[in-house]
Amino acid sequence: MDNISHFRFSRRSMATPRSMIREILKVCEQPDIISFAGGLPSPDFLDTEGIREASDQVLAREGKAALQYSTTEGYRPLREWIAARYEKRLHISVDPDEILITNGSQQTLDLLARIFIDEGDPILIEAPGYLGAIQAFSQYMPVFHAIPLEQDGPDISCLGRVLEETDPKFLYTIPNSQNPSGITYSTERRREISSLLKEHDMLLLEDDAYGEIRFSGARRPSFRNLLPGNQTILLGSFSKIVAPGFRLGWLCAPGEILDKAITAKQASDLHTNIFAQHVLARYLERIDMDSRISSISRAYAEKCSLMLECMDRLFPEGIGYTRPDGGMFIWLTLPEGFSAMELWRRALEKNVAILPGTPFYTDGGGDSGVRLNFSNADAEGIRIGISRLAGVMQEYMDTA
Amino acid sequence: MDNISHFRFSRRSMATPRSMIREILKVCEQPDIISFAGGLPSPDFLDTEGIREASDQVLAREGKAALQYSTTEGYRPLREWIAARYEKRLHISVDPDEILITNGSQQTLDLLARIFIDEGDPILIEAPGYLGAIQAFSQYMPVFHAIPLEQDGPDISCLGRVLEETDPKFLYTIPNSQNPSGITYSTERRREISSLLKEHDMLLLEDDAYGEIRFSGARRPSFRNLLPGNQTILLGSFSKIVAPGFRLGWLCAPGEILDKAITAKQASDLHTNIFAQHVLARYLERIDMDSRISSISRAYAEKCSLMLECMDRLFPEGIGYTRPDGGMFIWLTLPEGFSAMELWRRALEKNVAILPGTPFYTDGGGDSGVRLNFSNADAEGIRIGISRLAGVMQEYMDTA
Repeated sequence: MDNISHFRFSRRSMATPRSMIREILKVCEQPDIISFAGGLPSPDFLDTEGIREASDQVLAREGKAALQYSTTEGYRPLREWIAARYEKRLHISVDPDEILITNGSQQTLDLLARIFIDEGDPILIEAPGYLGAIQAFSQYMPVFHAIPLEQDGPDISCLGRVLEETDPKFLYTIPNSQNPSGITYSTERRREISSLLKEHDMLLLEDDAYGEIRFSGARRPSFRNLLPGNQTILLGSFSKIVAPGFRLGWLCAPGEILDKAITAKQASDLHTNIFAQHVLARYLERIDMDSRISSISRAYAEKCSLMLECMDRLFPEGIGYTRPDGGMFIWLTLPEGFSAMELWRRALEKNVAILPGTPFYTDGGGDSGVRLNFSNADAEGIRIGISRLAGVMQEYMDTA
Repeated sequence: MDNISHFRFSRRSMATPRSMIREILKVCEQPDIISFAGGLPSPDFLDTEGIREASDQVLAREGKAALQYSTTEGYRPLREWIAARYEKRLHISVDPDEILITNGSQQTLDLLARIFIDEGDPILIEAPGYLGAIQAFSQYMPVFHAIPLEQDGPDISCLGRVLEETDPKFLYTIPNSQNPSGITYSTERRREISSLLKEHDMLLLEDDAYGEIRFSGARRPSFRNLLPGNQTILLGSFSKIVAPGFRLGWLCAPGEILDKAITAKQASDLHTNIFAQHVLARYLERIDMDSRISSISRAYAEKCSLMLECMDRLFPEGIGYTRPDGGMFIWLTLPEGFSAMELWRRALEKNVAILPGTPFYTDGGGDSGVRLNFSNADAEGIRIGISRLAGVMQEYMDTA
């Protein structure tokens, strides 16, 4: 019938397999499944009524501007709010003109990869590393060098060695409640990293998606407080503190980098949905963000404690796991010889979804790791799900 | 103070100059300026009240889903609406699963470039060509081959020659009321192009941003009606028919291509703002799109006639221009020896903004061309603006 077109895709596209993650998460959407696999915030904090009021206000007062084309940089009142929040929360002085509004952190990652990475360029990432970053960067075909995470942050001697041996474009990090490990870098480790980076004049990307959501312990300094301003790029997101559905994040960078990012953003999609930017800006005016953050942090701390408590009580000997002081994830380490993919398959048979570790590694490793999300399920889901998972683990270990 | 970082940008990024367009359009934002430079739809058709009702409904009934993470493919009811509209308007049978929702057409262009273009790949575009496409494609460093536009569409013998001599990845076209020229391809020319493309098994990208907005003349067949389904990719947008601020467009392509685009989209920004997708879907349920399209088309036809009439009456001899039967743009051709950049500069002194032609050319040419937008200004603006522009032209020609 039709003559067959042999689509000639780009090498970049041929090199990217259909995402395993997307397939795994699709399965989790089935109704009876208790899912710890995704990275969804709790629905309890999606403030539909508050957003409705803000949205009404926008459409009544500034509707025409909110529905028309707008600037690539983003809505200025939103950029001003972000700058003020940096000042208040981290004592970082940022000009709103250093901020670009993006379609969530994922687009920030894409834009940074686009302006920095040529094929074959070395870049540094944590191991395990954030899979969204691995996906975004992979499209530009870099060579990943993974720095193993320890309790307090990346292995500093490995970082030093890699910086000596390669000449990477940047180090990408999530220093607070890292995704997927749940680890927060210690202040001491941040200082050690900073001296190494200064020595090598190396750029650092600080992705702070979870920095607001802390359960305990002092706030740690941002790398922006430890490194020269022109060595630090900050990435932020409203997904975890307001609503992921808006796809609103940002990039905060020195002017020369921001200029390049704006040009790349314009070529990518002209500008971010300006209606959502207006609604979010009005919403932020109406609420007390500090009190909202406390509520979210308290609720997630309780969920995390509950999950850890169930794990302490029910998991078989030999399963290691992190004890996060913030964020949304716990990282499990299975004993030698056990496979997270196999555990995933077995757990799914009992209607529990987990996320196997391999997509968080750039070298094909990670099959001993599992990421569990604790923010989305409710208390009953956590209790039942962990109990089922413990049973599956026990059976797997008994039959191995 | 700070040690100086020598940012090592990608070659792609170094090759992209700060956009001249963005600079030109920034100037136009000044209050006293009558601007024909942008590509903004008329504010009269931004339906703030209708959108407010749809938005209220979404947040009251399905708010949690509209604020949470969602799927990369896009909101299914919106994809169903698009498929039904293709069927009704163009008798094209499309499965909603062949459709991917994007952040406006600009992102569709980026995704297609990403999955098809390796550095140095030849691609075909009209001359003058849509500057947003030139910007998007340029990020992937292709070699552009420009096919000159004639009254009825691209120069067919040039197209044939280029297809013989090069082996391009695709031909990108805007067959209806092209941006920037305002030209609509004749049915005959579409057939000629289709036979050439079939012969060379060449992919065609049909960008139909303006197809709904027609002033006169029969609808022309889509290339999807003339070419095998696996040789045609359709690009669409809600920017011109509902609201550009939503940044909602789409891609309609054979499954294998769509799969690659979905993977690229996931790496780019996970998914499109789902709140806006819900609001738009509810809005589309509430309105009569055919009657909305008639109103927009009638209003733009009037503005276009008025602009042409003023030009016929006031422009000096020797200025050529197209007479569009749809869309938003008229294309001027200046006589030999006159520069559009110089005209732009002179017009701006009289508070009229135009868009010089060079950014629509991939070879540095086009300085004899000017794009004028007629959809955004009101009747008085068009009368005064064209009269001033005519004066500037006369003076320029008198003193040259």
